[in-house]
Amino acid sequence: MSGLKGNYLFPEVTTRKLNFLKKNPHAPLISLGIGDTTQPIPTSIVNSLVKASQELGNQGEYSGYGPGEGVEKLREKIAEKLYNNKISPSDIFISDGAKCDIGRWQMLFGSEVSIAVQNPTYPVYLEGSIIQGVKKIISMPCTPENDFFPDLKNLERTDIIYFCSPNNPTGAVATYEQLEELVAFAKKNCSIIIFDSAYACFIQDESLPKSIYDIPGAKEVAIEIGSFSKIAGFTGVRLGWSVVPEELKFDDGFSVKADWNRLVSTVFNGASNIAQQGGIAILEDSGLEEVHAIAKFYLENGKIIKKALEALECEIYGGDNAPYLWVRFKDHCSWTIFEEFLEKFHLVTTPGAGFGSCGESFLRFTAFGHREDVLMAAERLAAQQEDLLMSEKVASYCL
Amino acid sequence: MSGLKGNYLFPEVTTRKLNFLKKNPHAPLISLGIGDTTQPIPTSIVNSLVKASQELGNQGEYSGYGPGEGVEKLREKIAEKLYNNKISPSDIFISDGAKCDIGRWQMLFGSEVSIAVQNPTYPVYLEGSIIQGVKKIISMPCTPENDFFPDLKNLERTDIIYFCSPNNPTGAVATYEQLEELVAFAKKNCSIIIFDSAYACFIQDESLPKSIYDIPGAKEVAIEIGSFSKIAGFTGVRLGWSVVPEELKFDDGFSVKADWNRLVSTVFNGASNIAQQGGIAILEDSGLEEVHAIAKFYLENGKIIKKALEALECEIYGGDNAPYLWVRFKDHCSWTIFEEFLEKFHLVTTPGAGFGSCGESFLRFTAFGHREDVLMAAERLAAQQEDLLMSEKVASYCL
Repeated sequence: MSGLKGNYLFPEVTTRKLNFLKKNPHAPLISLGIGDTTQPIPTSIVNSLVKASQELGNQGEYSGYGPGEGVEKLREKIAEKLYNNKISPSDIFISDGAKCDIGRWQMLFGSEVSIAVQNPTYPVYLEGSIIQGVKKIISMPCTPENDFFPDLKNLERTDIIYFCSPNNPTGAVATYEQLEELVAFAKKNCSIIIFDSAYACFIQDESLPKSIYDIPGAKEVAIEIGSFSKIAGFTGVRLGWSVVPEELKFDDGFSVKADWNRLVSTVFNGASNIAQQGGIAILEDSGLEEVHAIAKFYLENGKIIKKALEALECEIYGGDNAPYLWVRFKDHCSWTIFEEFLEKFHLVTTPGAGFGSCGESFLRFTAFGHREDVLMAAERLAAQQEDLLMSEKVASYCL
Repeated sequence: MSGLKGNYLFPEVTTRKLNFLKKNPHAPLISLGIGDTTQPIPTSIVNSLVKASQELGNQGEYSGYGPGEGVEKLREKIAEKLYNNKISPSDIFISDGAKCDIGRWQMLFGSEVSIAVQNPTYPVYLEGSIIQGVKKIISMPCTPENDFFPDLKNLERTDIIYFCSPNNPTGAVATYEQLEELVAFAKKNCSIIIFDSAYACFIQDESLPKSIYDIPGAKEVAIEIGSFSKIAGFTGVRLGWSVVPEELKFDDGFSVKADWNRLVSTVFNGASNIAQQGGIAILEDSGLEEVHAIAKFYLENGKIIKKALEALECEIYGGDNAPYLWVRFKDHCSWTIFEEFLEKFHLVTTPGAGFGSCGESFLRFTAFGHREDVLMAAERLAAQQEDLLMSEKVASYCL
């Protein structure tokens, strides 16, 4: 696989963490790095996973292969509860998670497409495309200077546009006006938007769109990829979906949905039947209430970290409607700041540069974590902040 | 996706079945078609799925993302119980099923490779490759005349050789000598074998190899794809694995395992953590005993169908060490025979032609099914067999 860099961001973070621990085996590290859930799955949802497991042991209730596109009731619930029935259940395809579905979309699009990705970006859009052999990749800088929204007026046309909102890693949420502009741009250029809404459940501000389909006409230009990972602690259980509107066509008039159907029926066999029953329970009223409380808990974590960071010399973005804080340490390089946080505070973060060149000087802090860890991290920042970024070595490390 | 035919075999079977039911709404159809498990999952394994689900609800036991390559204990158990520790756990990558892993292998190999597939073949090898844009595809006829083993002496070299044993659809199991020949052929030609052992648990004859790695030197030329689907009724739960030996290199000396690691860490996030705990339970001594009993149950189904078919004018293959019977109705075409079985016996089968040109004149019967259905199917065959294949229309339908 030529063209693929040797290291995926998170393994590199892990390597550096382990190297540090080798030298400092008793350091009480706290991770504010990887975006992994830490709160247990709410009872009503666990009960449904248990029930689905038990049924597989009974002759009358056992079932084997399910429909590859997913259990009908789950598709209906997603349409109803997450899309207010503006999307037809038949346009919803259940998956084993957003990352896996992105890989399958890349398999479908092949190597001949041109793509645009936000910079910084969740690495999978880029690296999965490179694995596929995609050659033409356009970068869309998203920085504080442009309100984290690409300058579409000067953007070259591509076949595919990846767009993530709420954004990983910046925590930015696109407004209605911004998404309208994006949809219009895609329509004008016959581009397909892959809209990643994996973090939609964190949006608290009701004036912000939770789905690309909140924009009129989006069905003709956009696929939306959703996930139960963060909403309900399903990172390990594996459940997500793609919305592929009937209205969406390739340049040549061919139905995207028909091709997707064909691809997933060939190289996918549906998400685990146990996980799918869990998904249905998430979307019951009681389940939604429980998972919304968890989203609020994580956002509160974010507020605690934000407050502790505010005393440092840095700019803080995100966190209000997303589980990520995107923090700029101007004129410093992010892998160096990463090392400083590791050494001085024993905090593992994620260096912004790992998400693309526009992530340089940034660190990403995740709001996922146990409250006691978050509070302890905040204490450390408060206690030692005067030392940070004082050492002369910072600038010299930065290349 | 040009090059891809409009219909996947099983959807076409379903369509014909539904058309028949529209005309004959009260026909008591029995399916001996799709290879889907029907026996419930044994208790010890269900208990482990339940426990894994419950743990996700407890703060102390909750876990999010697992290692993408799978839970260590499951990898160790597979190495120990299924490969007698001849394979290192670190060469085993857990997946959400064989079909999905085949798709990822095809993504890794891309469009520029040449491939060889058995004819008849499990459609995914072929169709997934076509989706990837593979152009050079060599057919390896496997018929009663060559003991269902390809004529390697006259076979053109390809980069990849797909080989399935016990075979779907023919039920043939390759001998040690045959697999030695295959490994030697691959070694000579610097080909990589993708050995699909999804049905290995059905092998009763101890003189037959259950893994390609039973052949010395196979680690240098072969990937093996395994599955828990059929062994334990996990078709809906989704769990399998790929073995990628450290010794396996691409033509240019690059490590296949390193590339695989990179690919799965980019576009996959591991199998469901609940399913993986179930996999560990399957491989406990008690679990293995229970699932072996189920394999024997299905093979007994196969014997019952075989006995009923013996009175018909046909040749019967497979069934002894595989859950499929491969039945030739000489000089008849398989879609016509399919229709005859549907109309006369109300039995749904799978037309051999759907698996490739060498499947013409064959039907595939699956041994998966409830015993009462199998016995009823056998009764129908016994009662009406004199009528079968008597109608003149058979030959004229066949194109």
